[in-house]
Amino acid sequence: MPEKWEELIADKRARLAKTIPAEWKIQTLPAEDSVIDYPAKSGFLSAKELEITNSTATDLVAKLATGELKSYDVTLAFCKRAALAHQLLNCALEFFPDAALAQAKELDEYFEKNKKPIGPLHGLPISLKDQFRVKGFETSMGYVSWLGKYDTDESIMVTLLRKAGAVFYVKTSVPQTLMVCETVNNIIGRTVNPRNKNWSCGGSSGGEGANVGFRGGIIGVGTDIGGSIRVPSAFNFLYGLRPSHGRMPYAKMANSMEGQETVHSVCGPITHSVPDLKLFVTSVLSEEPWKYDSKVIPLPWRQNEEDIIKSKLSSGGLTLGFYNCDGNVLPHPPILRGVETVVSTLKKNGHNVVPWTPYKHDFAVDLINGIYASDGCTDVYRDINASGEPAIPNIKDLLQPNIKKADMNELWDVQLKKWNYQVEYLAKWREMEEQLGKELDAIIAPITPTAAIRHNQFRYYGYASAINLLDFTSVVVPVTFADKAVDAKKENYKPLNELDGLVQAEYDPEAYHGAPVAVQIIGRRLSEERTMAIAEEVGKLLGNAVTP
Amino acid sequence: MPEKWEELIADKRARLAKTIPAEWKIQTLPAEDSVIDYPAKSGFLSAKELEITNSTATDLVAKLATGELKSYDVTLAFCKRAALAHQLLNCALEFFPDAALAQAKELDEYFEKNKKPIGPLHGLPISLKDQFRVKGFETSMGYVSWLGKYDTDESIMVTLLRKAGAVFYVKTSVPQTLMVCETVNNIIGRTVNPRNKNWSCGGSSGGEGANVGFRGGIIGVGTDIGGSIRVPSAFNFLYGLRPSHGRMPYAKMANSMEGQETVHSVCGPITHSVPDLKLFVTSVLSEEPWKYDSKVIPLPWRQNEEDIIKSKLSSGGLTLGFYNCDGNVLPHPPILRGVETVVSTLKKNGHNVVPWTPYKHDFAVDLINGIYASDGCTDVYRDINASGEPAIPNIKDLLQPNIKKADMNELWDVQLKKWNYQVEYLAKWREMEEQLGKELDAIIAPITPTAAIRHNQFRYYGYASAINLLDFTSVVVPVTFADKAVDAKKENYKPLNELDGLVQAEYDPEAYHGAPVAVQIIGRRLSEERTMAIAEEVGKLLGNAVTP
Repeated sequence: MPEKWEELIADKRARLAKTIPAEWKIQTLPAEDSVIDYPAKSGFLSAKELEITNSTATDLVAKLATGELKSYDVTLAFCKRAALAHQLLNCALEFFPDAALAQAKELDEYFEKNKKPIGPLHGLPISLKDQFRVKGFETSMGYVSWLGKYDTDESIMVTLLRKAGAVFYVKTSVPQTLMVCETVNNIIGRTVNPRNKNWSCGGSSGGEGANVGFRGGIIGVGTDIGGSIRVPSAFNFLYGLRPSHGRMPYAKMANSMEGQETVHSVCGPITHSVPDLKLFVTSVLSEEPWKYDSKVIPLPWRQNEEDIIKSKLSSGGLTLGFYNCDGNVLPHPPILRGVETVVSTLKKNGHNVVPWTPYKHDFAVDLINGIYASDGCTDVYRDINASGEPAIPNIKDLLQPNIKKADMNELWDVQLKKWNYQVEYLAKWREMEEQLGKELDAIIAPITPTAAIRHNQFRYYGYASAINLLDFTSVVVPVTFADKAVDAKKENYKPLNELDGLVQAEYDPEAYHGAPVAVQIIGRRLSEERTMAIAEEVGKLLGNAVTP
Repeated sequence: MPEKWEELIADKRARLAKTIPAEWKIQTLPAEDSVIDYPAKSGFLSAKELEITNSTATDLVAKLATGELKSYDVTLAFCKRAALAHQLLNCALEFFPDAALAQAKELDEYFEKNKKPIGPLHGLPISLKDQFRVKGFETSMGYVSWLGKYDTDESIMVTLLRKAGAVFYVKTSVPQTLMVCETVNNIIGRTVNPRNKNWSCGGSSGGEGANVGFRGGIIGVGTDIGGSIRVPSAFNFLYGLRPSHGRMPYAKMANSMEGQETVHSVCGPITHSVPDLKLFVTSVLSEEPWKYDSKVIPLPWRQNEEDIIKSKLSSGGLTLGFYNCDGNVLPHPPILRGVETVVSTLKKNGHNVVPWTPYKHDFAVDLINGIYASDGCTDVYRDINASGEPAIPNIKDLLQPNIKKADMNELWDVQLKKWNYQVEYLAKWREMEEQLGKELDAIIAPITPTAAIRHNQFRYYGYASAINLLDFTSVVVPVTFADKAVDAKKENYKPLNELDGLVQAEYDPEAYHGAPVAVQIIGRRLSEERTMAIAEEVGKLLGNAVTP
């Protein structure tokens, strides 16, 4: 007889709690809103473990590759810190330190025997969103009806990361359906922001955002179909890469709306620095993912593309567009200041920054929202209803039950409109280049209209999702923090529309004080090398080359 | 008041007839089945014009680039020969020698003034399938209801070819709907094979096959969603490239089922040699098509990929798989002999050729047939019925009116199955490489089960379409000709299934004697450089480096 959904949840919570060894259990949860300093203060981690987890992935793999560090020690440090992260932030759906430590040991033995690393990520723990299938573990993806499904096969990304030497230890939480930029599900509840439990960690890769933001992970792997890598990166003062579709493998992942191809979800890393993003991308590409996943383009790392940007840095500078409003929803004052900070910093350093007029972003956002709901939301409600669990309230704006499915010819019409729009956007890009007489290297824009948002307030996905519709490469760069002393609420603001009014009304200088502020750097399709290099420069100039 | 469809056709035929100047009109059509020698014998073309049209595109652009040849003369020669082709084969839907000669004159003036070519195709006439939009001309694509639609915008491919220096002079015929591998529509009727009017020129880029086969064109541009470049190439003893999706621009083309993205139609060249295929591809890529068409991958010509194959040729040889039966339909004896000829020739020349087991091609063919019909054929019958014209009989097997549309979730299921199948096929490819201990460079296979087919007999698309489902790169290589003296009909053949029985029964050594036989060389996705280099080697070894 099928169990009741509440029982399935209780069972899962009990199983999850048991994965944390007694010696890592926090006896009394801290009362403060922010737990970002907890690892340093709590005494759970040794000085060495703090040093490891406060490092960069690039440094760690260098030390693992020489034998200066052992995978076991690095893995243990991250397992401990992730255990704290989960207890404080509620960010894990699966946690398996024993398997991770066993895997680490094997890698150490390999190193001992062969005197060389097994691959570019030798011994490095990597944190995975709970869409990645890892043999022997459960993938629920926040659906109660999926609980108890243990994977017998692996996602291609996991297989290739494993070949590259990565160690797996945690699969992090997601919102029910994945289609929300906050992280809440009925199984474990809500994941919160390490900097303030009243703020969201973002979503849908929110468990990654929280875990990596807390440094319970050094590289987290998320997915993005409408902001799901970039929003958690932004809300946790991290770097995040949304590669264009076809750059990173996605085969054999769990997903909502599997087989939907009108707008593709993509995999990408969330880290504390651009070199760590690059480490991840180069490591995956070195495994030739196109020989495993038919959707991956045979495009190895193009160092020459990165070098084009580097050479511009040393002569003439970059040429960048920017916008601070997409014409649909005006960002909160901290975000407007964030864009302005980036623009003025770049200009001060000799770069050419010009206004970019967002081209029909209202059209783009409507189109992609229609795509998300094109099956009448049949797929997501099938998986919600299968257990009897309720839908989370956050999905009600985007995914309504029992709406009309698109007809096949309507879908083709949408797909044609999408393509035409993309082609028109490229024409605008070329026009700008003709005007300027040189390449437009990237565009700087908000990624959300708000700094790390208060719970249940995420309403407007358009800054992120318009870029998904274009399939442009985008890198999130952390900029600053909301500051009640300078980010005053707008008086007598005349909203552009009802949604804009709602979003603007949510701003409260006191409540948002200290919340992370980010921008995204947008490059043309499949411009990962160039766009990451630009993001690296922007981060450096802002003083955020490596975030805390 | 809307005109009757018969009147629209009569008007179009009259307009088309007028485009041929009186001095190029054939007074008495030849009685022979083959007209392949007509240009040389008829006296319409001067010796110089015969020399030009019997040349290769690679030679022509070299001479145009030094001023040794004028675009006007080259264009005039091809216009004349295409005029003959159309009168003999019925291959053009639009013919515009005046505009072409004016364009050629401008290019000659440019050369005169600047002492250099405008681009890599300076002054070269290029023949286009009637899906390409050229400003000022009509795109009917074989639908009566589209007659009278004159283009005010151009396909991106046309824009870029124009920038590269190409001259346009003809748009060639297609089957109604494009979804047939023979070329017949109600507007101008049937296009026939220059080698024998009783044979098909193939389809859907059949007008290209006939025109280029007759050397009324030197490079023809077709499209392929299920064999439409490759079959006309095969039936006319030509080379044809079906690039993988995303390599060549397709934006702003006319098409059936516009917006259908489950399996993409792609553009590619049809020529008499591999260097001419390469000339086309490198010329288009040099215009950076990815800056114009969002679906094009930023992948410039990779000389290093071609060089990998070249270096294998000089040490160790190629490693190739082959199959002569896909398990669904056994090819006719001339095709079986064609595959065997290629395999033995390669082996004799030191290459490693091993059997390849086609993986679930029955599944692939069923899946793609379902995709073609996924809108219940609404789109194609809308355009057929809009004028009242009847459907051609050839589409009845593939596209039936009033069948059930796929539901959105059914489509997603099909798309997921497609992806999984592609991933499984890649696994088989890797397994073979592991067995062999080296790279499997490509697979040799039939492209059709028959040599150039008799009219209305094309029944099985699976040799071509399974490769479209995989989105593998494929190059057709002409091999030999059916020979009644050696290609005996199989006695007491036990068919694999009903369709196989029908196909095998069609074979008649007498009727097919002399019909072109070809194979396809299949490479992994986006392997254009390598696969063309392999095709070039195969063609050379067969003695077909440049076909007549």
